[in-house]
Amino acid sequence: MSNKNIQTLKGFRDFLPEEKRTRNYVQAKIVETFERFGFEPLETPTLEYTSLLLGKYGDEADKLVYSFKDRGDREVALRYDQTVPSARVLSQYQGKLPKYFRRYQIQNVFRADKPQKGRYREFTQCDIDIFGSKSNIADSEILACSYFAYKNVGFENVQLNINDRQVLMKGLSPFATDQVDVYSIIQSIDKLDKKSKQEVITELVEKGLTKSQAEAALISIENSQKSANLNEIIEAAKGLGVPADALVFNPFLARGLDYYTGMIFEIILPEYGSGSCGGGGRYDNLINELGGIDVPAVGVAFGFDRTVEAAVSLNLIPLENSTSTVLVTIFEDKTKQASFETAQSLREAGINVEVYPNIDKLGKQFKYADSKKIPFVIIIGESEIKENKVVVKNMLSGNQETVSIKKAAEIIN
Amino acid sequence: MSNKNIQTLKGFRDFLPEEKRTRNYVQAKIVETFERFGFEPLETPTLEYTSLLLGKYGDEADKLVYSFKDRGDREVALRYDQTVPSARVLSQYQGKLPKYFRRYQIQNVFRADKPQKGRYREFTQCDIDIFGSKSNIADSEILACSYFAYKNVGFENVQLNINDRQVLMKGLSPFATDQVDVYSIIQSIDKLDKKSKQEVITELVEKGLTKSQAEAALISIENSQKSANLNEIIEAAKGLGVPADALVFNPFLARGLDYYTGMIFEIILPEYGSGSCGGGGRYDNLINELGGIDVPAVGVAFGFDRTVEAAVSLNLIPLENSTSTVLVTIFEDKTKQASFETAQSLREAGINVEVYPNIDKLGKQFKYADSKKIPFVIIIGESEIKENKVVVKNMLSGNQETVSIKKAAEIIN
Repeated sequence: MSNKNIQTLKGFRDFLPEEKRTRNYVQAKIVETFERFGFEPLETPTLEYTSLLLGKYGDEADKLVYSFKDRGDREVALRYDQTVPSARVLSQYQGKLPKYFRRYQIQNVFRADKPQKGRYREFTQCDIDIFGSKSNIADSEILACSYFAYKNVGFENVQLNINDRQVLMKGLSPFATDQVDVYSIIQSIDKLDKKSKQEVITELVEKGLTKSQAEAALISIENSQKSANLNEIIEAAKGLGVPADALVFNPFLARGLDYYTGMIFEIILPEYGSGSCGGGGRYDNLINELGGIDVPAVGVAFGFDRTVEAAVSLNLIPLENSTSTVLVTIFEDKTKQASFETAQSLREAGINVEVYPNIDKLGKQFKYADSKKIPFVIIIGESEIKENKVVVKNMLSGNQETVSIKKAAEIIN
Repeated sequence: MSNKNIQTLKGFRDFLPEEKRTRNYVQAKIVETFERFGFEPLETPTLEYTSLLLGKYGDEADKLVYSFKDRGDREVALRYDQTVPSARVLSQYQGKLPKYFRRYQIQNVFRADKPQKGRYREFTQCDIDIFGSKSNIADSEILACSYFAYKNVGFENVQLNINDRQVLMKGLSPFATDQVDVYSIIQSIDKLDKKSKQEVITELVEKGLTKSQAEAALISIENSQKSANLNEIIEAAKGLGVPADALVFNPFLARGLDYYTGMIFEIILPEYGSGSCGGGGRYDNLINELGGIDVPAVGVAFGFDRTVEAAVSLNLIPLENSTSTVLVTIFEDKTKQASFETAQSLREAGINVEVYPNIDKLGKQFKYADSKKIPFVIIIGESEIKENKVVVKNMLSGNQETVSIKKAAEIIN
């Protein structure tokens, strides 16, 4: 193998066991909550016709699609997001899907983007959406499910910043001009989490507003009130169990994407940082634009990498998640059968057991258990076999006891 | 969207919720067993350098690799199997991995093959391997883990057909000629599960053996005995809990691939059919050939699609796996808050609950629950609110009871 060969491509990652277990743990907690809220799993292919993906999110996005000709001369492309394939599914299986289709989708997507810290060319997207309902009850279910998914991972404080795109539109439309349309103003307002008001005003002036227009636009937004729609959504979310202080109205929240039509929100983990870990909202026209059928929709996308990072940095991943619980050592050839039978008994008791795959010096086997952070080691010699017992060694304390297998299972559990 | 656009590519599949849930169920049972045996998860990227993948499994396989130039003019390719990336991982992270690396890997692979019944261009591979141990204790762990994984999915009869590649080599080497090498003879013998002995003899004669040589080769194999190695492996597997009658010595078992060096085996589910659902064995030289480091290995690959098919056809998928357990209906605007609070209480009790995302006629909501096979429906009207109770309707029996929320959770659980 050449040197180049033994490397992963830039922007792509291996997940070795410790990291993969962590990711699996976070994902399992999120999925548990999704299913608690009645969301159902969907999987779509990694490859689609390129023509399905291009022209859906603008020219800039098109440049990031991994597209190529396959051996049958078809233009095919790697999954770029999960919304376009979902739009295809809604169109392709019309009449076969539930009237209100609540689905979750957790798959990898591919972007031929410049790799940098926290930005990868293959990464995991984690979406829930309710398709088919115009009622804001669906909006509240999305908010509540998002809140409880993060709580279930173990985050103590979860904050949802909420706004209504209609409020923004109403507040900003009077300031739109032929040169600077309302979406362009919204895109500038959206930067207020990273830029100062003064910087946003400067940007709006550069776009073509007068300074007084730009200032007035910001004041108009600052003074805007929750819509009746937003009040109802927040009340319902409280009914669904979200604490009132986790639901924060933020009139400046804009969410960059043009396609939102109603409630918009972002998930903030205050102990981790001010950036959002996910966001979403209502987009009643997008599926029609993407897929040719008229289906209202509301949903959220979690930033899975960022969520895992946050969980790790706040020590939310339980240690017992880290490896096998027991290493059963193999002492010598004539006792090995007893080791096998002990491993089997412990596995039957629901314990994760690794049999040391060699006959080796005990010291080496202890060292191996240590290096893998396996908390218990079982030793079975001839005297133990005679007594029908095993030695359980706690690798952390160094204590060891000679006990029955049943008792050993109790100690370990 | 053009008609072409709303289709998946040939050989690629959508998994709608019912099918995806079934696959998730089978996968979770398999993973539970893998972890019970101390196997740890590994994930590698979907894309690798093409040069890593080509030339590893022969010219025929190379033709099936999905390879293309990315935007940076690098030749990149979609995952073709999980062994080559694992060989890269073993080489790239030398010294960082456990001495005995037992890993599982469940990811999709891509083959530009002619699609046909049961053969797809994207499908799931499900592998376990122990890297680093020459001891046949590792072989037995692989056998036992395979057996219990299938038992855990729910298969009543699981049979492991076992042979030793060394026995085959020893039995067949005397019949090899300059024209027909021993691997070529093995490849013909391997077809004995699909072809008659006479057909295999004819094939060997076509390859260049005389008829009497071909017949003698088959008789030689028929009379071969278990090796000492195989006896030890089988004894250890019994110690690890595999019943003796599930471990079947089959001297004709060959496993086509040239790279096996010792024990080989196949997993048979007799109630489902005679074809194998997975197989594996020891391959002590392959990782060196693929990755440039010398690591002995033993492992197995499950045919995930076939395993899921078998589980479905034998009715092993529990029905309660099929959808939300409860639909909480929304009666009217002034009672909806009580519906939300009830949903929250039931979710807190660990029940999967869907809130009907609309205010609608009750009949329509019942119909919706029926179409999604949701077994319980909750109704809360003004009189229930006054009494602090809810109506629980069993959709199967049609019975309904007015009870407290606590009692409702008990009935549903």
